[in-house]
Amino acid sequence: MWMTTRTLIINQHRLEKRINALAEIGKIGETGVCRLTLSNEDRQAVETVKKWMEEAGLTTKIDHFGNLIGRYEGENPDAPILMLGSHIDSQPYGGRFDGVIGVLGALEVVQTMKENMIIPSIPIEVVAFSDEEGCRFNKGLFGVRGILGKLEEDELERIDKNGVSRREALIQFGCDPDKLADSVYPANSIAAFLEMHIEQGPILDVLEKPVGIVTGISGPLWLTIELEGFAGHAGSVPMNMRKDALVGAAKIIVALNEIASQDPDSPTVGTVGSINVFPDSRNIIPEKVSFTVDLRDIDINRRNQLEKQLREKINSIANEHQLSYKITEDTNSEPRYCSDRIMSIMRTECKQMGLDPVELMSGPFHDSLAMSYICEYGMIFVRCKDGISHNPKEFATFGDISLGTELLYKTTIKLMEKMNK
Amino acid sequence: MWMTTRTLIINQHRLEKRINALAEIGKIGETGVCRLTLSNEDRQAVETVKKWMEEAGLTTKIDHFGNLIGRYEGENPDAPILMLGSHIDSQPYGGRFDGVIGVLGALEVVQTMKENMIIPSIPIEVVAFSDEEGCRFNKGLFGVRGILGKLEEDELERIDKNGVSRREALIQFGCDPDKLADSVYPANSIAAFLEMHIEQGPILDVLEKPVGIVTGISGPLWLTIELEGFAGHAGSVPMNMRKDALVGAAKIIVALNEIASQDPDSPTVGTVGSINVFPDSRNIIPEKVSFTVDLRDIDINRRNQLEKQLREKINSIANEHQLSYKITEDTNSEPRYCSDRIMSIMRTECKQMGLDPVELMSGPFHDSLAMSYICEYGMIFVRCKDGISHNPKEFATFGDISLGTELLYKTTIKLMEKMNK
Repeated sequence: MWMTTRTLIINQHRLEKRINALAEIGKIGETGVCRLTLSNEDRQAVETVKKWMEEAGLTTKIDHFGNLIGRYEGENPDAPILMLGSHIDSQPYGGRFDGVIGVLGALEVVQTMKENMIIPSIPIEVVAFSDEEGCRFNKGLFGVRGILGKLEEDELERIDKNGVSRREALIQFGCDPDKLADSVYPANSIAAFLEMHIEQGPILDVLEKPVGIVTGISGPLWLTIELEGFAGHAGSVPMNMRKDALVGAAKIIVALNEIASQDPDSPTVGTVGSINVFPDSRNIIPEKVSFTVDLRDIDINRRNQLEKQLREKINSIANEHQLSYKITEDTNSEPRYCSDRIMSIMRTECKQMGLDPVELMSGPFHDSLAMSYICEYGMIFVRCKDGISHNPKEFATFGDISLGTELLYKTTIKLMEKMNK
Repeated sequence: MWMTTRTLIINQHRLEKRINALAEIGKIGETGVCRLTLSNEDRQAVETVKKWMEEAGLTTKIDHFGNLIGRYEGENPDAPILMLGSHIDSQPYGGRFDGVIGVLGALEVVQTMKENMIIPSIPIEVVAFSDEEGCRFNKGLFGVRGILGKLEEDELERIDKNGVSRREALIQFGCDPDKLADSVYPANSIAAFLEMHIEQGPILDVLEKPVGIVTGISGPLWLTIELEGFAGHAGSVPMNMRKDALVGAAKIIVALNEIASQDPDSPTVGTVGSINVFPDSRNIIPEKVSFTVDLRDIDINRRNQLEKQLREKINSIANEHQLSYKITEDTNSEPRYCSDRIMSIMRTECKQMGLDPVELMSGPFHDSLAMSYICEYGMIFVRCKDGISHNPKEFATFGDISLGTELLYKTTIKLMEKMNK
């Protein structure tokens, strides 16, 4: 799996060493990590990366949201910042690479710049955002939304499974929740954001490509469908007199799968992940069924069109089986597209590196999603074995991570040049 | 709803009064009853019916299984018995008619015979069987299997939700579990069994027929199907790379529905009543799904043929979606047919009563199912509003019940005549 990397500018050995060292903090099993946001393990990880940032010559701080920020001052210190980063908190049963390669890759980029005496025209900041995952307080992208002034009301009062509030956890972490406003970035102070991340999907692995250029993050449409028919004894109600809510649900699940698969060239995905049946007894015809729908597409018009098809199908299937139904919209996020000029830089740099990268959308969201609302952004995906993520089995080779980091380095340099003009 | 019933031989007012009186014991809400087997309410109901039996001139006993037996002696006391009856225990959230009309209807039949000075050639016994429902100790048909010597090992050690064993409950009820053998009927001592019951399904209601002649009890085939695919992020795994266990399950549910519905003239029914998804998260592709199958038909060859079709479908759908699967057979009961000569008597008597009854199979089982293994049996179904049963909403009109009881009376008389020959 190790590739010939003599031509790389970044220091792949240093990068590998740091990724391995960070994987020891909160380690579970041989390959997993558990670094819940604002936990002791998270703090230890933040302190470790902070030390590496300082070794690299960056000015560091941990802000009141729990974000770790390392700054490489630019020739023009007042210019809008080029921000690079991701997160180092993890799922409770998580892997070593999710988020981590985006933070340590960004640090490697800046450290390589410094070692090569490249003084940036504008300030560069490397950020490890607090609580991207959202699994502790059931709401993610906390740190990045924090610096953008986009937290919702009462977000500090959310509690974890042990009854600890985010406010308490922030204080325990060393932050001062009463000074959050001090950590918010002024409007127009960030020029662009670059993030490298493992794909968390199987496309690059199947296509045997080490890296991919992300075209955008497809926000999901989340619906809950409730169907209601009529219960009855499974042995005594003839088939043609039934109002079986599960048969209706099954037809809708099959229909969604067909709707999302109809254009094999589009990245549309449609999923029913959760279903509940009442009364859930083997010899009673299901009276009520509720299930979730997750529909994503990078093209919002196509997604809206597919949603319309789905709603029509739900209506006709419900009528066919004499079911009443209710559709609730839980989330309706719009796709957020990556910057054309950043993607264009990435294409050119890939070509020069001899790479023939895939361009793909991101189904999962990332810190980039929040950044997309205030600046241009670009993302690099690194191949992820079998597409497995949020699991100790998560794996990416150091060869692939190094190639992604090299591309991040070259993109950073070229983007700075363009910003200077 | 009250029908003109001047022509009836049985005493419909007495029957109605008794059904209403019994509904007061263990009453819940306006129309429901809760008379769990061997409970205080069950005992009170048994004592009440015992008193009515004695008023009718029957010799009564409560055996060691908790069965209530009233005997009308025959001219030949040693001849095999003609047994009539059903049960008076109920579901925890049950109705007033389930079982009850079969016991009180049988009592009405015998009381009418006595009043009309009809001395039976063979002994007639009216039985209220103990624990038909099976909901307290999770295994039903206890009393009827008891008298036939067909209890399984350790059945007395089954416990209810409060940790009370059936043995303890029998003792509390006044039975002696060490003397069960005394209550077992000798081989060949029962000649035939007749049972009247509410349909517990909607066929008679939809066809607007007060009574139906049961052709047999279709034993269910119960399968559990487990499918296993591969989990993945709902946003990042392209449709054509998925192994979605729920899509596979949905296609099988639709297929079962089609297989069971393909012949609109057959009484085949197929149901998926229960389903479980893992990990059951709205943004994760389902990795494992298990669900139940309930397939019933009065024709075992047709049912076997449909099961074969279903298994082939499961195999092809699993292959299509790259799922592994496992099929477990939980129950495989054979259909048990009603006696041709009893059905023939019922047809003739219906015609004389001006009824045009439907002939239909029973999906649910009844005490008759156990009796079917030792003697000929016949069943009469009474129309049940909307097919609702095992629910306080369960409803049958006294007009329909009286017609069913009249048919039971006439069938009893005619069957006895035939037995005499």
